[in-house]
Amino acid sequence: MAKISTKAQQMPASAIRKLIPLADAAVEKGVKVYRLNMGQPDIKSPECALNAVKNISLKNVSYSNSAGLMELRKGLVEKYYRKIGINIEVPELIVTVAGSESVLLALEITCNAGDEVLVLEPFYTNYNTFAFMNEISLKAIPTEISKGFQVPDISEFEKAITDRTKAILICNPGNPTGTLYTKESMLALGEIARKHDLFLISDEVYREFCYTDEPHFSAMNIPDLDQNVILVDSVSKRYNLCGARVGCIVSHNKEVMAAAMKYAQARLCPPVLGQIAAIGALDTPQEYFDAVREEYIRRRDYMINGLNAMPGVYTPLPMGAFYTVAELPVDDTEKFARWMLEEFRYENATTMVTPAASFFKTPDRGTNYARIAYVLEIPEMEKALRCLAEGLKQYPGRTEK
Amino acid sequence: MAKISTKAQQMPASAIRKLIPLADAAVEKGVKVYRLNMGQPDIKSPECALNAVKNISLKNVSYSNSAGLMELRKGLVEKYYRKIGINIEVPELIVTVAGSESVLLALEITCNAGDEVLVLEPFYTNYNTFAFMNEISLKAIPTEISKGFQVPDISEFEKAITDRTKAILICNPGNPTGTLYTKESMLALGEIARKHDLFLISDEVYREFCYTDEPHFSAMNIPDLDQNVILVDSVSKRYNLCGARVGCIVSHNKEVMAAAMKYAQARLCPPVLGQIAAIGALDTPQEYFDAVREEYIRRRDYMINGLNAMPGVYTPLPMGAFYTVAELPVDDTEKFARWMLEEFRYENATTMVTPAASFFKTPDRGTNYARIAYVLEIPEMEKALRCLAEGLKQYPGRTEK
Repeated sequence: MAKISTKAQQMPASAIRKLIPLADAAVEKGVKVYRLNMGQPDIKSPECALNAVKNISLKNVSYSNSAGLMELRKGLVEKYYRKIGINIEVPELIVTVAGSESVLLALEITCNAGDEVLVLEPFYTNYNTFAFMNEISLKAIPTEISKGFQVPDISEFEKAITDRTKAILICNPGNPTGTLYTKESMLALGEIARKHDLFLISDEVYREFCYTDEPHFSAMNIPDLDQNVILVDSVSKRYNLCGARVGCIVSHNKEVMAAAMKYAQARLCPPVLGQIAAIGALDTPQEYFDAVREEYIRRRDYMINGLNAMPGVYTPLPMGAFYTVAELPVDDTEKFARWMLEEFRYENATTMVTPAASFFKTPDRGTNYARIAYVLEIPEMEKALRCLAEGLKQYPGRTEK
Repeated sequence: MAKISTKAQQMPASAIRKLIPLADAAVEKGVKVYRLNMGQPDIKSPECALNAVKNISLKNVSYSNSAGLMELRKGLVEKYYRKIGINIEVPELIVTVAGSESVLLALEITCNAGDEVLVLEPFYTNYNTFAFMNEISLKAIPTEISKGFQVPDISEFEKAITDRTKAILICNPGNPTGTLYTKESMLALGEIARKHDLFLISDEVYREFCYTDEPHFSAMNIPDLDQNVILVDSVSKRYNLCGARVGCIVSHNKEVMAAAMKYAQARLCPPVLGQIAAIGALDTPQEYFDAVREEYIRRRDYMINGLNAMPGVYTPLPMGAFYTVAELPVDDTEKFARWMLEEFRYENATTMVTPAASFFKTPDRGTNYARIAYVLEIPEMEKALRCLAEGLKQYPGRTEK
């Protein structure tokens, strides 16, 4: 029997999704599973986006330009980025197959095999997968739950930088932590990137999900770093169109964009129906974002209060995205999550969380942390949290009495 | 200024698309450009596919399973593959971001860096790009225009196989040649794959575009090769939904599918709106395919006769897809194609073809070949061919008087 490559064998499996079969098995037995594990919001997509798709007049869904439909590229530049104070021209933006392709492209463009990329730990687990696919080594700069996972002192970066370091990859607001970086932190990151001439790859797919009064400070607005910043963005996330698979990669660096175009041409074009939805979404009224923001703030506050009220649980107050990382009084969150799905039942229900160890690169870090998403409506979340609290009480591997 | 990776610098640019700026420049000057260069058909998508999109009732375009929507996976297995005699189960199929992702996955799954894949030359140029991205080496087995680019004697494969050979990658019917492989050729390929335990990656995205009375013989139906065959398929191509970006990867090999799932999970999910179009497309009536087939046969016959009537031009009669490779009486097809776009005008029009050298790996092969697509309606094609004939007469680098 023909053997698959060792690379494919060693390719990491999705830690976020590997518990899904256990959840499916529970559901099949009639158990209600409250899913706090996935970044799959239940918020409606904007009507203008859905209507754009419903009203298509085209007779043939043909390829778009590899860089995306011109109407979408122009619309993003003029209707979206200009409004939020990011000034770019059309050739500085290529439409991608969601943020995922955009991260992958940014890594491929900046790094050869063996090169290093600095990431703030905990980080989105697929950064590791995309790095693995390109034989790039991620080097983790630890951040602390007690400090709300904020950017550590810049000396931590200095210590980690080597001749092979090519880029710093950040996610702001962050998945999994929900941490929003301050303007000061962003400027400090800019300084270190400038000093060592590193690329700063800034994943800002959760930009519209910020809960402070200060506006989000984009890496695109760090002074004198034009040629080093690569912006990773997602239309799908911003407008609750996760399945549309439309994002973009943005940079003022012409070499970066020329290289991105070569990769973009190899896969021919981004999904056209999703692009049509994205064009429609450009007309989303501000009230939509305001309402979504208010809803998330309500959910976040409810969840953070609920978690911190559980004995032995601690989580900081996240200022962005729709996740938080919580420390749980358990021996191992993966064991706990499995036990919740396989053994624990409370009123014939259980709650699913994501073990956070896969968001860490440093050995033994994060083993008692979980990523918890506040993507359910409050009445559902109430039941989910009650179930989680009860599970934590009864779990045999509880570390705190 | 931060430097992009040498890999990104060396990444091959799309040979098919690099003449597009010249065509755009001609159009801007008011010149009509007949485009025989792209595989972008003008055939309408099936109404049932478009209606499925127009009638969406979902309120939130959320992620699908990484393997695709279950309705689409089941539909493909039961409504499409079973009907054409390919017997698979749902777990043996993963929905991909069109055929492009499927080829890329197949290469990643079967090969480590440094491994070799045999391809029949001329081959689809992006095979080379995808191989480059994974540091896989393509080894070309030449085929001859005089023999209609058919599979050569199996001894040619034996000569090329080394310890590092992991797979044979074929495209049937072929892009760029339009060649349809006989059942005998497929069985011979199966034998060599079996003997050396190689994967046989079979790109069959043009399966519904066959013009013989014999049915298409899929690699999936080669006896005793279950564990070695990986099928690359495209829903987008089949239903003239190129922009929908929906395809699939299929294999009976469980290890292959488990690895494919890890890659699929890393990019979260295939485009959902395209998947909805694809579900609708499953109900496409046979009459649609019959009409498309008849139209392509008319166009093909018109084009092949037209080309072979031009002095010094030769092309075989392709039995599939919507391309042909023609030998032209020119010094270098790339120079000729540029000259056509930049200098030549006939009644204020010109014709665009794709230089075929990039479909070859062997140095100096294919330099006077062009890939020509019969994707225009006959009245347009008539003008395109007249223009091409005139250009060939006047071209300063003509090799035959």
